Amino acid sequence: MSATTPLDLNFQPPAELVELADKVKRFVTETVIPYETDPRWTAHGPTDEMRRELNDLARKAGVFAPHVPTEFGGRDLSTVGQALVFEAAGYSMLGPMAIHCASPDEGNIHLLDVVARPDQRQHFLRRMATGEIRSIFCMTEPGGAGSDPALLSTTARLDGNEWVINGRKWLITGAEGAGCAIIMAKNEGGPMDGHATMFLADLPDPAIRISRTLDTMDSSFTGGHGELEITNLRLPADAVLGEIGKGFRYAQVRLAPARLTHCMRWLGSANRAHDIATAYARDRVAFGKKLGEHEGVSFMLADNAMDIHLARLAIWHCAWLLDKGNKAASESSMAKVICSEAIARVADRCLQILGGLGMTRDTVVERIFRDVRAFRIYDGPSEVHRWALGGRIVAGKF
Amino acid sequence: MSATTPLDLNFQPPAELVELADKVKRFVTETVIPYETDPRWTAHGPTDEMRRELNDLARKAGVFAPHVPTEFGGRDLSTVGQALVFEAAGYSMLGPMAIHCASPDEGNIHLLDVVARPDQRQHFLRRMATGEIRSIFCMTEPGGAGSDPALLSTTARLDGNEWVINGRKWLITGAEGAGCAIIMAKNEGGPMDGHATMFLADLPDPAIRISRTLDTMDSSFTGGHGELEITNLRLPADAVLGEIGKGFRYAQVRLAPARLTHCMRWLGSANRAHDIATAYARDRVAFGKKLGEHEGVSFMLADNAMDIHLARLAIWHCAWLLDKGNKAASESSMAKVICSEAIARVADRCLQILGGLGMTRDTVVERIFRDVRAFRIYDGPSEVHRWALGGRIVAGKF
Amino acid sequence: MSATTPLDLNFQPPAELVELADKVKRFVTETVIPYETDPRWTAHGPTDEMRRELNDLARKAGVFAPHVPTEFGGRDLSTVGQALVFEAAGYSMLGPMAIHCASPDEGNIHLLDVVARPDQRQHFLRRMATGEIRSIFCMTEPGGAGSDPALLSTTARLDGNEWVINGRKWLITGAEGAGCAIIMAKNEGGPMDGHATMFLADLPDPAIRISRTLDTMDSSFTGGHGELEITNLRLPADAVLGEIGKGFRYAQVRLAPARLTHCMRWLGSANRAHDIATAYARDRVAFGKKLGEHEGVSFMLADNAMDIHLARLAIWHCAWLLDKGNKAASESSMAKVICSEAIARVADRCLQILGGLGMTRDTVVERIFRDVRAFRIYDGPSEVHRWALGGRIVAGKF
Amino acid sequence: MSATTPLDLNFQPPAELVELADKVKRFVTETVIPYETDPRWTAHGPTDEMRRELNDLARKAGVFAPHVPTEFGGRDLSTVGQALVFEAAGYSMLGPMAIHCASPDEGNIHLLDVVARPDQRQHFLRRMATGEIRSIFCMTEPGGAGSDPALLSTTARLDGNEWVINGRKWLITGAEGAGCAIIMAKNEGGPMDGHATMFLADLPDPAIRISRTLDTMDSSFTGGHGELEITNLRLPADAVLGEIGKGFRYAQVRLAPARLTHCMRWLGSANRAHDIATAYARDRVAFGKKLGEHEGVSFMLADNAMDIHLARLAIWHCAWLLDKGNKAASESSMAKVICSEAIARVADRCLQILGGLGMTRDTVVERIFRDVRAFRIYDGPSEVHRWALGGRIVAGKF
Repeated sequence: MSATTPLDLNFQPPAELVELADKVKRFVTETVIPYETDPRWTAHGPTDEMRRELNDLARKAGVFAPHVPTEFGGRDLSTVGQALVFEAAGYSMLGPMAIHCASPDEGNIHLLDVVARPDQRQHFLRRMATGEIRSIFCMTEPGGAGSDPALLSTTARLDGNEWVINGRKWLITGAEGAGCAIIMAKNEGGPMDGHATMFLADLPDPAIRISRTLDTMDSSFTGGHGELEITNLRLPADAVLGEIGKGFRYAQVRLAPARLTHCMRWLGSANRAHDIATAYARDRVAFGKKLGEHEGVSFMLADNAMDIHLARLAIWHCAWLLDKGNKAASESSMAKVICSEAIARVADRCLQILGGLGMTRDTVVERIFRDVRAFRIYDGPSEVHRWALGGRIVAGKF
Repeated sequence: MSATTPLDLNFQPPAELVELADKVKRFVTETVIPYETDPRWTAHGPTDEMRRELNDLARKAGVFAPHVPTEFGGRDLSTVGQALVFEAAGYSMLGPMAIHCASPDEGNIHLLDVVARPDQRQHFLRRMATGEIRSIFCMTEPGGAGSDPALLSTTARLDGNEWVINGRKWLITGAEGAGCAIIMAKNEGGPMDGHATMFLADLPDPAIRISRTLDTMDSSFTGGHGELEITNLRLPADAVLGEIGKGFRYAQVRLAPARLTHCMRWLGSANRAHDIATAYARDRVAFGKKLGEHEGVSFMLADNAMDIHLARLAIWHCAWLLDKGNKAASESSMAKVICSEAIARVADRCLQILGGLGMTRDTVVERIFRDVRAFRIYDGPSEVHRWALGGRIVAGKF
Repeated sequence: MSATTPLDLNFQPPAELVELADKVKRFVTETVIPYETDPRWTAHGPTDEMRRELNDLARKAGVFAPHVPTEFGGRDLSTVGQALVFEAAGYSMLGPMAIHCASPDEGNIHLLDVVARPDQRQHFLRRMATGEIRSIFCMTEPGGAGSDPALLSTTARLDGNEWVINGRKWLITGAEGAGCAIIMAKNEGGPMDGHATMFLADLPDPAIRISRTLDTMDSSFTGGHGELEITNLRLPADAVLGEIGKGFRYAQVRLAPARLTHCMRWLGSANRAHDIATAYARDRVAFGKKLGEHEGVSFMLADNAMDIHLARLAIWHCAWLLDKGNKAASESSMAKVICSEAIARVADRCLQILGGLGMTRDTVVERIFRDVRAFRIYDGPSEVHRWALGGRIVAGKF
Repeated sequence: MSATTPLDLNFQPPAELVELADKVKRFVTETVIPYETDPRWTAHGPTDEMRRELNDLARKAGVFAPHVPTEFGGRDLSTVGQALVFEAAGYSMLGPMAIHCASPDEGNIHLLDVVARPDQRQHFLRRMATGEIRSIFCMTEPGGAGSDPALLSTTARLDGNEWVINGRKWLITGAEGAGCAIIMAKNEGGPMDGHATMFLADLPDPAIRISRTLDTMDSSFTGGHGELEITNLRLPADAVLGEIGKGFRYAQVRLAPARLTHCMRWLGSANRAHDIATAYARDRVAFGKKLGEHEGVSFMLADNAMDIHLARLAIWHCAWLLDKGNKAASESSMAKVICSEAIARVADRCLQILGGLGMTRDTVVERIFRDVRAFRIYDGPSEVHRWALGGRIVAGKF
């Protein structure tokens, strides 16, 4: 039995990860949180200028992109390591952007790390991982492709030595200002006709037009959520990411971990909301005693603590599975549903505890509440995951 | 037994009210809804310009302020009448403003109708009721006065023939652009020392400064939510609304019905969200069948129908009680909790059914979801009402 | 406009119905509740001996079977009248049996009142209505016929002048000791082959064997829940109830009102549990104050009050519709789901408030909790009703 | 760094514990489950005769009391070990009794193992650990002592060389047939006047009369739940368990782990219910497809899986803390609330999926549903734990 074989359950993460997470938490608390009142945090997310400014501060603080491969300056964090660090980063809605572990870049970087060719690593992944450019993941379409892949309608046709891509993409996070795109399209013609393929494209490209940036309830993603018109986009034959026809397989490579990293970051925001509500419940007086001495309030705080506790356990467990090489399809679905719903409850309770104040942007809870609402939908609505989980249970494949 | 004595339960509202509500619903659908994409609907609510434009259209359509006293051009609607008309108006978040039954004016008009002197009726109430000016209700303070009246800290001191008022008010809906204010203050000195009194003041007044308009999650109130600094505001001795020292009694006169009219208007928005989600569930396809043919979706629609059904019954019952002269303290508390929570669930389910689309402002569900969140807090958070209800039950006074 | 045309909403039931309900409530409180500790209330329900004893007391008190047709000694109560009286009766789980408005007799009586021939009225309905015999409704089968009618497997074949019926019935409430049966069977052969027909049979009959009485969580139905083997039951050609092939249509005649009368009776039990829990919360001390002064408890009582309020409104509304001749398919489904779930929550909260005491049969809350659990299943599980409601909404037929 | 120091999170329990748990699960499945239909499983729990029979079978199978100290034939399992084994045992409600890890013996054995003197170990603990006798824990009283220790009213007075104990105990699990008692009493007189002390007493003793065995909703504890009258019980001066006046401290020694072992056992019953419901959903057909192919059902199964997953994680985490010597006051409170509520939801969903069948004792789900209802109350109702947790959060001591 080697020194690294655990002999019992262990819920104590490695000290070096705990230290790194503490460092990130300090950076977020001391450096990022003051930016939360910066007007450059717009309704369509923080500006790229603000992002670069915070990225620089993160680099100086030694907390920039610790998850990316060491060849790009990171520490190649395990999923467990990400669980700790991303939760710490999420303590401010701006934190993940600041240390460059925000979606969709974080998931795109992971995908390219697994699938990209050496030249693609140099051209795309290196610049993404170092924060030189932001990337977008163009899968969702106005007609519903996203939750249900069968509805994919963007097409890719080989014309001589070039692919010609046409279609519309929608709710594309980070579109405005992005430097490259991963585009999912359905092969038209050729031996893989009807199968989905992923392509890499530099941005901006006149064939990819951002027809508008959507007004959305959430407001924390740099570049907002764009609607894209792709009209006769021509890409070289080798613009394919991985192999032709394996688009959906790669989407899975990206999705299971991406789902979980969402959980991590948003758990950080639940911690933040809970801390703000707790402080308020301690200070504020109502009906002759501290707000927090009313059971109607303290029970909500207790429920927050339990929701946060369980969300973290579900994340850690799934992270551990992924690190062991398990695909964790069911576990990541469960973690996604558990965390998105638990975190939404926490945000809702915190807002309620704050009362009228909670409805205002005087605390960040208002933004958290709005942002986490999205989490029950993005990366598969709760219903799709319950449907998948229930189906596996009934089929005896859970 | 007279012709008007009902012999049995009756859930069929009078035909003339149903007709009026239908007319309002048509006006809202045909005339108001197109304004929902008007850029004058800002994050701090629709502008006064937009309000006046819609008010004019409502006047032309014969649906302007049907609830106000006949002397001001209204129909002096019963509470049951309001229940029908305000629900119809609420079918657009802009509807209540359009037909001039929005909060806080609607509640202020009711309060003045009950309490104001003839000269105050002429100077204040007439102009409020006809939409010439908007009014604000200045009770809530940053320190918590609002849910807990004991915390009121704005003071009113009689200095010769004038009242001198000082204090800070907060979350004052409609502040920007309002033409008059009802101000709640605590008497300092005099025979009613320590008691609360209501005052009427014209706006703008240099002694009442809007230090800022708060950024809030909700966005449907004209004038937004302001923070007010009242510094040595001088009002004539007769600026008192009703009697000195009866401020809290009058607050109750305003609150029970105001709570219920909130329920009515917001129920309208639940209907709207439900209709949008239902239409989407009918049209959209996912995983090989209509979205609405998935039980995961159709069960949500069924729950919506039940929540809307119960909210309406609770409103109608309480309205009927109020019309009979019953104070309906418990019933209006119950209706407030029931409706605010049911409507929030409906909005949440609708947003979930819409998926990513629900997070965008491409449908009005996004705004409805944000606005109705406030309803669980405004006019007494659920917790305060549960506390009051539970207290009465334990005391045998329910 | 006639004297009976209501001019407005009315939530005040007719005085004579209120008086009758009060009388029933007094009878239940004074006379029936003492029987709750009688050992003849067995795990399979109260015995028939106990039933007859209580029926006699009800007759003496003038509260026996007020809902049945006047020709059988009742008052032919409207559905609204039933709403008041049955809720009052339900204040004890034994109350409906005592005044003879318990399921399944009450629904069977209604069905025969609508469908039976004059000779069947005399032979069956008269004896059922007067409490001379109890009746059973044999629809549910072990294979699932019940929620899903398509699964009906009991067959009826015409053999000369006689019907020959074979099959197994299951969860047949009141089987032990019943005096007649309504049997649902599928025609085998003949012009209505494959259609369902209802038959009336005297009991006991050697061809109908109670193979066992099921052990069930609920314990309030006289005769328990039996499993029946029907083997070559021979009935005369005119044993058909109504017309051949209309079994499912008649099932609907029975079900919509039967669903609602369940709501009424069980609402009574919610009142009872709530009163017991309230009294306990007033008397008991925990952690230095009355139990009911803890918000954790008083909020539960407030929620009870709201659940009871809404359940009653949903019942009254649906009763009013039925009295107007409306089939109220959606409204009775909604009332069933609303009431069964609200009442289960009330029972659960009451049990929780009582703590360890709640788990014991020292209060009747323990029985109520177990019995009302069934209500979310009997007469169509919540899921079947949500499915039907959602389906209608999506189809635009709600 | 030694071979046993884990370097990372680990959710894989030691192989030998997994094997032991598998062995227990097989024993339960093959040997114990057939006893579930044995009539000796009465409404007041399985009889002692049945218990001894099953204990013998467990001894033969090598799975008897693996948690007890090795000196008594056990394996002195860690809390993590208990988590695995007790969950396996709980797969039948009779399993814990069969392998002798049922409450209250299991907690009593733990308490004596920590606190008892050598002679008490020999006389009491040895016989308890080997299953020779059953023991009871006499803390709860009819007046409320239990959740709120301040209400303890049983008294212990030193009279010469003897303690004289008087009082009433209530809901004493396992009373009928027990061989010894741990009695909590308040010192009357002496230096520790007013403090609580624990005593050990042999049973039966004429001074301890079981005035009745309570009828309760749950039915799985051997000996049922008794009410005890203690009248001038005389015990020798050295009958004290541990030190005089430290009764509540020892209660805590017992409670935190006892709370958690409850979670473990009941989690086993949730697994069982879920397996039964899953099998049913696979086999049964309704409305044209498998029950489990209806989202209304499969979503419930998915929710079960998540509840079970989270309950297990919360248990494992707390067990790990306890094994590290952490008192885990907050974590065991959280685990108790989380598990009791999650398991109750699972049982409720399973019963609902089974429909009418669920209400019958034809499956064990009916008993599970009733038994787990107690779990939200026993060992501190959810409200007391939420109150404690919330209080710690507000006090900054969480």
